[in-house]
Amino acid sequence: MADPYHNIISLRAVRHFDPAPIPDNILRHILQAGRWTGSAKNTQPWHFVVVRERGTLDALAGCGRYASHLRAAPLAVAIVTASTRFWDTFDAGRAAQSMMLTAWAEGIGSCIAGLDAACARPVLGVPDDHHLQLAISFGYPQANAPHTIEGRPLDEVLAGLGRVPFDEIVHWERW
Amino acid sequence: MADPYHNIISLRAVRHFDPAPIPDNILRHILQAGRWTGSAKNTQPWHFVVVRERGTLDALAGCGRYASHLRAAPLAVAIVTASTRFWDTFDAGRAAQSMMLTAWAEGIGSCIAGLDAACARPVLGVPDDHHLQLAISFGYPQANAPHTIEGRPLDEVLAGLGRVPFDEIVHWERW
Repeated sequence: MADPYHNIISLRAVRHFDPAPIPDNILRHILQAGRWTGSAKNTQPWHFVVVRERGTLDALAGCGRYASHLRAAPLAVAIVTASTRFWDTFDAGRAAQSMMLTAWAEGIGSCIAGLDAACARPVLGVPDDHHLQLAISFGYPQANAPHTIEGRPLDEVLAGLGRVPFDEIVHWERW
Repeated sequence: MADPYHNIISLRAVRHFDPAPIPDNILRHILQAGRWTGSAKNTQPWHFVVVRERGTLDALAGCGRYASHLRAAPLAVAIVTASTRFWDTFDAGRAAQSMMLTAWAEGIGSCIAGLDAACARPVLGVPDDHHLQLAISFGYPQANAPHTIEGRPLDEVLAGLGRVPFDEIVHWERW
């Protein structure tokens, strides 16, 4: 098992999954990692909807332009937030990262799917006073998976591959 | 060193710091953890401003109601985002969690300070087309630190202590 830093540094989106299910004890760790994430004034502005039924995963996959990885995932966790206010959204990002890193430490890949709220809300029965904009696919990476998104090469869809150089985004004392 | 899961589960906000500086190699790991965080379409919608000058930390501490922990921190990292759109904010939350977990694995505590943008922007010289709403304090936890925020007991400021029960926030297949 990697140490925490290398687990964090090595996390990459996995969009092609092996059909093997995720063991219940690992799923519980993933959800506890989300639950124990810190939030502004400890408001915990989230609910997590665990989806394993194929029909539901397929329906969610139809709710986003780049959501088709949900079709092949053995499991997804939709993150429902209290609102789209800055801190609720920011804290949801923190919880997502906690869950994805916990999975990755067990060799389980993940990918965030952006969802159209109007499409996805009735699929999961999310009440009107909560917000649903994403689900995270989880699954063991497929061996020899193609480097594609929706059948297109990664570099056609992503803003770039890799990351912007360190010195372009890190500033010392002032911008 | 804790395994990744226990590192994630045990992360708590630390608001009272020992003045010891953070070694440069650990700071670099913290920043790399932020830099390598995933983002929607790999847009990497962030800049990180590292602040160690006492005058600047004090000025930022005056820019938020619960930001005074910046005064005692040996170092802070302000996260500047490309916008306040949903994904930029969500991804900033992911990057923050990556940095805080990297620090925690080294025994370094952290706390997020919400900042008033109009107050903080000129302090760091952040351009008008970028958004600044938070900085993260980093430092070794002070021994025998009080359990207070701004001198008030934690439970007067936070929505609650601990976390909402697992079964209240986790839903199976549907809300």
